[in-house]
Amino acid sequence: MYREKIKVLDCTIRDGGLINDHDFDVEFVRGVYKAVSDAGVDYMEIGYKNSKELFSTEKFGLWKFCDDDVIKRAVDGIESKTKIATMVDVGRVNPDEVTPAAESPVDMIRVATYVKDIDKAIYLVNHFADKGYETTMNIMAISRDRGPELDEALQQVEEESKVQVVYIVDSFGSLYQETVEELVKRCKKYLKNKEVGFHGHNNQQLAFGNTIEAIIHDANFLDATVYGIGRAAGNCPLELLLGFLNNPKFDIRPVLDLISTQFIPLRQKIEWGYIIPHAIAGMLNEHPRAAIALRNSDEKENYRQFYDSLTSSLQVE
Amino acid sequence: MYREKIKVLDCTIRDGGLINDHDFDVEFVRGVYKAVSDAGVDYMEIGYKNSKELFSTEKFGLWKFCDDDVIKRAVDGIESKTKIATMVDVGRVNPDEVTPAAESPVDMIRVATYVKDIDKAIYLVNHFADKGYETTMNIMAISRDRGPELDEALQQVEEESKVQVVYIVDSFGSLYQETVEELVKRCKKYLKNKEVGFHGHNNQQLAFGNTIEAIIHDANFLDATVYGIGRAAGNCPLELLLGFLNNPKFDIRPVLDLISTQFIPLRQKIEWGYIIPHAIAGMLNEHPRAAIALRNSDEKENYRQFYDSLTSSLQVE
Repeated sequence: MYREKIKVLDCTIRDGGLINDHDFDVEFVRGVYKAVSDAGVDYMEIGYKNSKELFSTEKFGLWKFCDDDVIKRAVDGIESKTKIATMVDVGRVNPDEVTPAAESPVDMIRVATYVKDIDKAIYLVNHFADKGYETTMNIMAISRDRGPELDEALQQVEEESKVQVVYIVDSFGSLYQETVEELVKRCKKYLKNKEVGFHGHNNQQLAFGNTIEAIIHDANFLDATVYGIGRAAGNCPLELLLGFLNNPKFDIRPVLDLISTQFIPLRQKIEWGYIIPHAIAGMLNEHPRAAIALRNSDEKENYRQFYDSLTSSLQVE
Repeated sequence: MYREKIKVLDCTIRDGGLINDHDFDVEFVRGVYKAVSDAGVDYMEIGYKNSKELFSTEKFGLWKFCDDDVIKRAVDGIESKTKIATMVDVGRVNPDEVTPAAESPVDMIRVATYVKDIDKAIYLVNHFADKGYETTMNIMAISRDRGPELDEALQQVEEESKVQVVYIVDSFGSLYQETVEELVKRCKKYLKNKEVGFHGHNNQQLAFGNTIEAIIHDANFLDATVYGIGRAAGNCPLELLLGFLNNPKFDIRPVLDLISTQFIPLRQKIEWGYIIPHAIAGMLNEHPRAAIALRNSDEKENYRQFYDSLTSSLQVE
């Protein structure tokens, strides 16, 4: 698959940070930036831009806040064409604290939102666009919001926002390729002048397959992480995506080195990937929190009880 | 997805046997048969029917030979509607040693073949059909045989064989969903009175997604294994497939129990799943033997060197 407009965004540190309280060493982040730069990846999302008024800097690591000077320590001196992105969540950022793009190492700000918060997301996107940033809007938990409210939100984004890319985010890892096709086509229907992006979660081993499906239907912004790291089951593995994208600008080998030297040891310390309770949550279209709690308990391998507890709670709803 | 004609075939013991010389305890096999029976799975492939003239019974376990009396020890006394299948490879079976279906616990014989051996496969299929078995023909390494030779083979199978199901086997784990779509449609074009099946390998985490793709285009026989066990990267996980198939005849919970109690400990002893050298072999459409050799060496995590060795050998070809 070769399509020049396709852009790959590595979110290793941002999504991976959700399983270690964003507490990566600066040197580790520097190594990831060097590798994805050498691999020709278009963007690297380096963390969240959360407000320190809302979250404790004692509890969370550097990449929950992404101060400009911290980012500079991680990237300065590395030859790279890879742009830097950070993510903000609606309600967790103070936009006035964000410096204009011209004064920041950050090139792109991605606004994560639920459909219900689309007004707030549009406000944030426009605020950051006015400060000179490239912007995306990442619609989370979209598998739960597939009714007419999604059409209304997309129409509003098209009419009122300056965003460049709208992402479909399969937060629960529950989409199948037919659902991905439907969602990408729906986005394309409303968004005449914006690109569509896809961010998969790998609960059912479908993050890569669903990303390919999104590509087939003309999504051009694709998220992935090194060795699939990310919350719960993790994400689309960057190495698989680069292998699929037959574009000579990409070189998979620096990513392979990074996995050999850093991610195989890291996986021994923190858990992500194909884990049955996360698969169950995905197939039942459930938030990962119950499966994460199970994995931190003595019942971590008691899959049947977990399945029964989720399905019986579904029946009550 | 609910379609009554869909049949699920569990090949846990047969494909899993490729990583332990087919040396499962009878009790273990009995446990798998009980679980897949309780889960409502349509078929269980219990091993290979290889000739003892060609393979040593000292070197290989029981499930490389599948003597009828051994199978009976594994299944007798278990209430089940699950039919028993065995696999034969062209050139590795003495068909005259196989008793008629009426005298055997086996219901189905699956003939594995390359496109180039299709004449021999047709002979075997017809031989077993005449003995009263259900039959399938499993076309291996199909990702390497997608030229006109495949059309000719399919035409010949349609005209000359009594086979009921023709399987697309992604031996190298290199197919993407577009290729799966093309292959299923091609099979359907030639095979007017036969079903199409799909057997995925999980090198690129696409076995499940590709199986869904095959279903979308009307493949009705679907292979899977418990927790995805199988040679190298393994297969489509049965638990994911049952979760997707919205058919009340299936119950995922016995499979979840089996994973909790048997397959989590087994995975500590033998290796399968998402392993980078197998992913590399898949994306390069290579036989798994080089990656398997690497994993048994001191260089098992040296991914870049492995990638370079495979790509440079490709250039020489």
